[in-house]
Amino acid sequence: MKDTGQWPSEYPRLRELLAEIEDLSIALAILDWDEQTQMPSSGAQARADQKATLEKTIHAKTTDPQIARLLESLMPFEESLPPDADERGLLRMARRQYYLATCLPEKLVTDFSRARSRAFRDWLSAREKKDFGAYLDSFQVILDYSIKVGEALRQGQGQPLEGLLDYSEPGMTLEVMERIFGELKESLTPLVKTISDRLDTIDDRILYEEYDLKRQWDIGLQGVDAIGFRLDEGRADQSVHPFSTYFSPRDVRITTRMDPHDFGMSFFAFLHEAGHGHYMQGIPEAYRRSPLAEGASAGMHESQSRTWENLVGRSRGFWRHFYPKVRQTFPEHLADFPEEDWYRAVNRVQPSLIRVEADEVTYNLHIMIRYELEKSLHAGALAPRDLAAAWNAKFKEYLGIEPQNDLEGVLQDIHWTGMVGAAFQSYTLGNVMAVQLYDAAVRQNPQLEEAFERGDFSGLLAWTRENVHAHGTKFFPQELIQRATGQELTTAPFLAYIHRKFGALYDL
Amino acid sequence: MKDTGQWPSEYPRLRELLAEIEDLSIALAILDWDEQTQMPSSGAQARADQKATLEKTIHAKTTDPQIARLLESLMPFEESLPPDADERGLLRMARRQYYLATCLPEKLVTDFSRARSRAFRDWLSAREKKDFGAYLDSFQVILDYSIKVGEALRQGQGQPLEGLLDYSEPGMTLEVMERIFGELKESLTPLVKTISDRLDTIDDRILYEEYDLKRQWDIGLQGVDAIGFRLDEGRADQSVHPFSTYFSPRDVRITTRMDPHDFGMSFFAFLHEAGHGHYMQGIPEAYRRSPLAEGASAGMHESQSRTWENLVGRSRGFWRHFYPKVRQTFPEHLADFPEEDWYRAVNRVQPSLIRVEADEVTYNLHIMIRYELEKSLHAGALAPRDLAAAWNAKFKEYLGIEPQNDLEGVLQDIHWTGMVGAAFQSYTLGNVMAVQLYDAAVRQNPQLEEAFERGDFSGLLAWTRENVHAHGTKFFPQELIQRATGQELTTAPFLAYIHRKFGALYDL
Repeated sequence: MKDTGQWPSEYPRLRELLAEIEDLSIALAILDWDEQTQMPSSGAQARADQKATLEKTIHAKTTDPQIARLLESLMPFEESLPPDADERGLLRMARRQYYLATCLPEKLVTDFSRARSRAFRDWLSAREKKDFGAYLDSFQVILDYSIKVGEALRQGQGQPLEGLLDYSEPGMTLEVMERIFGELKESLTPLVKTISDRLDTIDDRILYEEYDLKRQWDIGLQGVDAIGFRLDEGRADQSVHPFSTYFSPRDVRITTRMDPHDFGMSFFAFLHEAGHGHYMQGIPEAYRRSPLAEGASAGMHESQSRTWENLVGRSRGFWRHFYPKVRQTFPEHLADFPEEDWYRAVNRVQPSLIRVEADEVTYNLHIMIRYELEKSLHAGALAPRDLAAAWNAKFKEYLGIEPQNDLEGVLQDIHWTGMVGAAFQSYTLGNVMAVQLYDAAVRQNPQLEEAFERGDFSGLLAWTRENVHAHGTKFFPQELIQRATGQELTTAPFLAYIHRKFGALYDL
Repeated sequence: MKDTGQWPSEYPRLRELLAEIEDLSIALAILDWDEQTQMPSSGAQARADQKATLEKTIHAKTTDPQIARLLESLMPFEESLPPDADERGLLRMARRQYYLATCLPEKLVTDFSRARSRAFRDWLSAREKKDFGAYLDSFQVILDYSIKVGEALRQGQGQPLEGLLDYSEPGMTLEVMERIFGELKESLTPLVKTISDRLDTIDDRILYEEYDLKRQWDIGLQGVDAIGFRLDEGRADQSVHPFSTYFSPRDVRITTRMDPHDFGMSFFAFLHEAGHGHYMQGIPEAYRRSPLAEGASAGMHESQSRTWENLVGRSRGFWRHFYPKVRQTFPEHLADFPEEDWYRAVNRVQPSLIRVEADEVTYNLHIMIRYELEKSLHAGALAPRDLAAAWNAKFKEYLGIEPQNDLEGVLQDIHWTGMVGAAFQSYTLGNVMAVQLYDAAVRQNPQLEEAFERGDFSGLLAWTRENVHAHGTKFFPQELIQRATGQELTTAPFLAYIHRKFGALYDL
């Protein structure tokens, strides 16, 4: 991305316009981070106004007809570039960004932003009451806007839900999603059933003793540091729902949430968000202030978080290295508790109610439930007032358990305060892509996994830096997978991993 | 500000445009707060870009020709309104805002913003080296931009410095400033000399023992709470330089800085910033998202901070109520230390190097030094490379002491990373106005001061809410003083207060 002296004059002009859009988008992300981690709740109304105005301003700049003119006049330049040229990727993303923004009328953008801020507050208050009824009105509004957005994105071609899917996963189709969920369902459903009959094989009660919050925080930060996330070029905070956010490759922030009676909640959320953080810290400085400075998709982002949360954070090698530190931090719980039992505990399979605490085997069923509900809501086959009951029924059907209240049910995720239909499938794609990428990394560096035991995770990080992070949005996710692994997107590595690992743990 | 049904249609249209400007200005303030309290230093370059783009965007919206057209067509409406109508004040401020913004070319605004971000970083790093030389280049740039801004504001009428003065103190002239400094100098210089001969009258060593930082933080928050600042509708944090900021009347944030060997540093900075915070928490909700939602001027703002820091926070009444709490918090220091000696200690006069720690008697000499230096810099009579030496010489001349290094000298204030000539005089105006307002409050509520001893500061807060805060920027500062006190701006109450209080303390 250095000035080669060969750029047409329109190119730097376009970059400057795009840089301003990026700057304002990051300003919006800063307002959002502040809202979730620092702001007093009394500041919410004003913050909603501020965010709505910023979104409106970003929308106006994103839809500036100058951009369309520059993109058009840069067409011959774009076509002259090799397929993997940064400039080519940038121009493709700029065109996509312009298209996505011009589909949406300005008023829709502004009204939806306000509605989301209101929905977020209502959701928080409904959570306190553990009652979806208190969120119903806002949810209906969010659903209506989601359908409107999906319609605008598709412009009459196909279902609104497909517009939302392509929005978060460039190039993804409903057909591919159906295939992936089909393969997972076929392979995982019998496995979950089998394991459900022998849940007592693993005892994880040790994780739910009372762990001092201050020390939980400290050991979580140590874990984040151990896997190489640069805390000195970022921050860690607490929030209701853990998240990570990017203000520059050298200012990446992660959050977790804490529970004194659940060691894993904060620890694995920390590793998860640090995995997202790795991606953002690996974005090349030269991509900053351009549409390239993001992850390839929500699913690709999730693949990085799941890599560090699960493939590393729940591996034998990681705990060989890290368990002594946890034991030292909590001697009153762990002085006599064996490492192997700890490794088994953090991998226990248990059909459960809360997605973010679900194990690797059942997790995709949580997603399937949401995906199926979203399809029904979009199709009008399910009314929002029936959503909580439908949620509970599906949990009973797939996992054999039912929420006691809406807080541990339909109110658990923040996502439905933002959009209905655009988010959840990316989690499953992330799980699938994570293992496909990880297998390729190990194939190319067979010593990589052994190093975990010595606390050395640099081999894996370097491989993902080079093969994933360094490309930003230059390639669509399925292209990136093909380039990094030499194969098309496939569920085979994920399913093989699950059957291998949990087959061993449950003596199947 | 309710919809009376009598507004011309241009009025709500103008308000919407102004609301967006306010929203974006607050977004900028949020980025700035984050930069100073939360951001890792590695995020600075990107933050400078983000702020520059936001400032450019705000500038473009502020100079939107639509605003000029709307203002022009609203002229007859404006003239039909009574002088104290909210709408009239709003239109006057909108016109002023438009004028100030259109004086400044967009490129000047953007370049200056980037320069300020760079200067802030260089200043931090020069502070570490305690060497103004490391900041000299950036300072020269800031001075050049300040002169350019002053020139643009004046448009050839008078000196650039006068443009900067009117910028922070609407309606203020250099002539009035010279008169005020003249009166203060005449009355205070002999007093400082007299007291300097008897510095031993008061012993304040108790304040410089080692106070645990955690407990300092807690007692500071208690103090802030005691004077009525709503911490639940704001926040308190630490930063290099204490400041306060407004995101809405219900999201007001203050900061302090801490030193284990200086009890007063954090405690009085807390009260000072909470005084600013009072002003912002007192802005009417109806003024939000309009140019009325600010303090009348920097000096008027300072009058509120000084009221709570000094007129309350260093009063006998306050300490009658609050000293037992401090004693209870630090029994190892204060169990046997008398209240009267504590009151005397926090009021000790001592010619010192650091402005923000200066006592009420010498404080205005600190300001006078900066004001005189700024005049010389603007006039070209003093070169930036000679500034540190000139600073030190003036300290020797006025206060009889000299900094040992630039950190306790010319590098101590953040202000010269922003503008040279626009800020310091407002501190003195604040001191003067604070006492004039306070005297009026006590005149109208003679019981007000006695209530301090019972921890009841609500009488003073209510009076300032009604007579100062509730008006936002509706009146220029000198109009506000006239309305609130029935008198023109005068140094007489301030000087009488100083001579009365310190005459008693020093047996003069």
